Amino acid sequence: MRRCRRGGPGTAAGSLPRVTDLLDLRADPVELTAALVDIPSVSRDERRLADAVEHALRTQAPHLEVVRNGEAVLARTNLGRASRVLLAGHLDTVPINDNLPSRRTGSGADEVLHGCGTVDMKGGDAVLLHVAAALPEPRHDLTFLFYDCEEIAAEHNGLNRIERELPDWLDGDLAIVGEPSNASIEAGCQGTLRVEIRTSGARAHTARAWMGENAIHGAEPILRRLLDYVPRQPVIDGLQYHEGLQAVRIEGGVAGNVVPDSCLVAVNHRFAPDKSLAEAEAHVRKVFDGFDLTVVDGSGGALPGLGSPAAAELVAAAGGEPVAKLGWTDVARFAARGLPAVNFGPGSPTLAHTQQENVPTAQIRSCAEALTRFLS
Amino acid sequence: MRRCRRGGPGTAAGSLPRVTDLLDLRADPVELTAALVDIPSVSRDERRLADAVEHALRTQAPHLEVVRNGEAVLARTNLGRASRVLLAGHLDTVPINDNLPSRRTGSGADEVLHGCGTVDMKGGDAVLLHVAAALPEPRHDLTFLFYDCEEIAAEHNGLNRIERELPDWLDGDLAIVGEPSNASIEAGCQGTLRVEIRTSGARAHTARAWMGENAIHGAEPILRRLLDYVPRQPVIDGLQYHEGLQAVRIEGGVAGNVVPDSCLVAVNHRFAPDKSLAEAEAHVRKVFDGFDLTVVDGSGGALPGLGSPAAAELVAAAGGEPVAKLGWTDVARFAARGLPAVNFGPGSPTLAHTQQENVPTAQIRSCAEALTRFLS
Repeated sequence: MRRCRRGGPGTAAGSLPRVTDLLDLRADPVELTAALVDIPSVSRDERRLADAVEHALRTQAPHLEVVRNGEAVLARTNLGRASRVLLAGHLDTVPINDNLPSRRTGSGADEVLHGCGTVDMKGGDAVLLHVAAALPEPRHDLTFLFYDCEEIAAEHNGLNRIERELPDWLDGDLAIVGEPSNASIEAGCQGTLRVEIRTSGARAHTARAWMGENAIHGAEPILRRLLDYVPRQPVIDGLQYHEGLQAVRIEGGVAGNVVPDSCLVAVNHRFAPDKSLAEAEAHVRKVFDGFDLTVVDGSGGALPGLGSPAAAELVAAAGGEPVAKLGWTDVARFAARGLPAVNFGPGSPTLAHTQQENVPTAQIRSCAEALTRFLS
Repeated sequence: MRRCRRGGPGTAAGSLPRVTDLLDLRADPVELTAALVDIPSVSRDERRLADAVEHALRTQAPHLEVVRNGEAVLARTNLGRASRVLLAGHLDTVPINDNLPSRRTGSGADEVLHGCGTVDMKGGDAVLLHVAAALPEPRHDLTFLFYDCEEIAAEHNGLNRIERELPDWLDGDLAIVGEPSNASIEAGCQGTLRVEIRTSGARAHTARAWMGENAIHGAEPILRRLLDYVPRQPVIDGLQYHEGLQAVRIEGGVAGNVVPDSCLVAVNHRFAPDKSLAEAEAHVRKVFDGFDLTVVDGSGGALPGLGSPAAAELVAAAGGEPVAKLGWTDVARFAARGLPAVNFGPGSPTLAHTQQENVPTAQIRSCAEALTRFLS
């Protein structure tokens, strides 16, 4: 685990990091996105970008209290407002895939910015940094969380460390996560559950197969139930979710002349946030009734929570119709702490993690304008 | 590839190897089996045993022409008989599995000899060595083949090298392979064909699974056809065969949150010797019609050939009812050269390659007596 670099859980003002990258938070947020994208920050290698963000916030947003925690940078107003809005963005990206530095195609309303992280989620980070510097007197108190290690195993996520070491920085009345959502409000998120189902049999030489029992053949009913499965598509708070039950791995076999005695099918269930993790597990156990099933891991979803006053204001400022978030995001971490939480960021989530990752620059600007409207 | 140790494809009389193990070919064949078992000879490490066999044949069976070829020892009579019988046994074993040295349990008719190689196939080797020394004037000319590397990939089998370098040593009218057959005549052998069947799909995030196509789910009909398959059990020359079609490996999966776009099922088909390898392939392609199928490897079976005069004599001498050989053995190599070929050796084939490998010593003696009857 990474600990804070300079002792204690967080380091306050006065100790500016030396940086090679100077970010201009007052620039057009599209320019700022390109600048962020061009500082590589693959998970576990975020220091250069975190230093640049910390330096920029300390020098260009003096109205904020800034704290460094590991490779996360936290900043907040302390204006005594009646409510507090959290704005969160991870700084890390998936591995670079021959898609840096950033480049642009098109122009005007059709301009597109390409490169690793443009969608997931430096466009969102740029919007949040823009707002951080531009709004010294927001309507709500604001807490900005720029954090590390979101793109790798959940146990490494920088929010875990912040929750452990600086829990009061996660308090508030609404959380906005800048993950890509096509510049719409995506509310709530689906939960995820991974299980492993095993069949067993008895080994035998394939020349005398009737003396054994083939565990791969025995997996047929598992695949049959997956094929026959009709996923729910519930509507919650007016938002349409879409569940799923998918085999993500299958393996079995001993040798080319042996009837195999074991086969494993790993299944991922995505479930709407009206179901708890425990209910999702009970459901999957029922689907695969009669089979040996082990839960590998799971995370509950998050209800949309659009009924809260701050969320309703945000929806109005963003315009358009909110939609359901299908993938699991850190929104669920905030929801688990009792905050309504939404995704709101530029770019299409379907392009995340792809080599051709790209974001329409108009979405970056529209997100920055909507947040400014909401918070002014 | 191993070449002959002393130049040329084979080395004739006069150059006795120095040995640490002296085998007594005139001893009770059970004692001889134990002596062979106690000389470890895992595949590719047969030299010590091959040296002992060569030394014993040269010194105790002077009526035989003896040739050394790599770690194989070949010996034959040249009596001008009307027909020639080949007697073949491999010298190597699978890896030792905490089952050496040999030990005995029981006594008299219930005595059992335990240890690596007792079944596969030093009991058979002992029977052949016993006959080699005991019968200077056999009814048929005899060719003994003690060879290396049968238990590993077929390409390393010592018979390949012998066929290439000393092909006339494989000529004859009947081949008897001393593989375990419960001291009965097992005639012919089934063929084997291995294929790989692939399904393909389209990757997608499991949270939006309907945007992809799950290749593991797509493998369900393959498993269904395997489950529904009714294997033929044809009777050939009075012998009952039993075919099989078995998945021996399955694999698919990209990541825990990705709908997989590829899945592979490896299938082993065992087919009776009334079908050619080409017919077996056509059959398997028909079973999996509509799927992408690749042949990995295959070997044709061998017809029983019990109608030949020498084979009929052997069956009479062995007594009992001949049975079909289901596994593939080197019998098929001789059959492919036009020789009727049978398995005839002590021990149960189902114990081959197991840690508890053991042979009833009465079967060793009965095999030796039957071969002596047949050849005297």
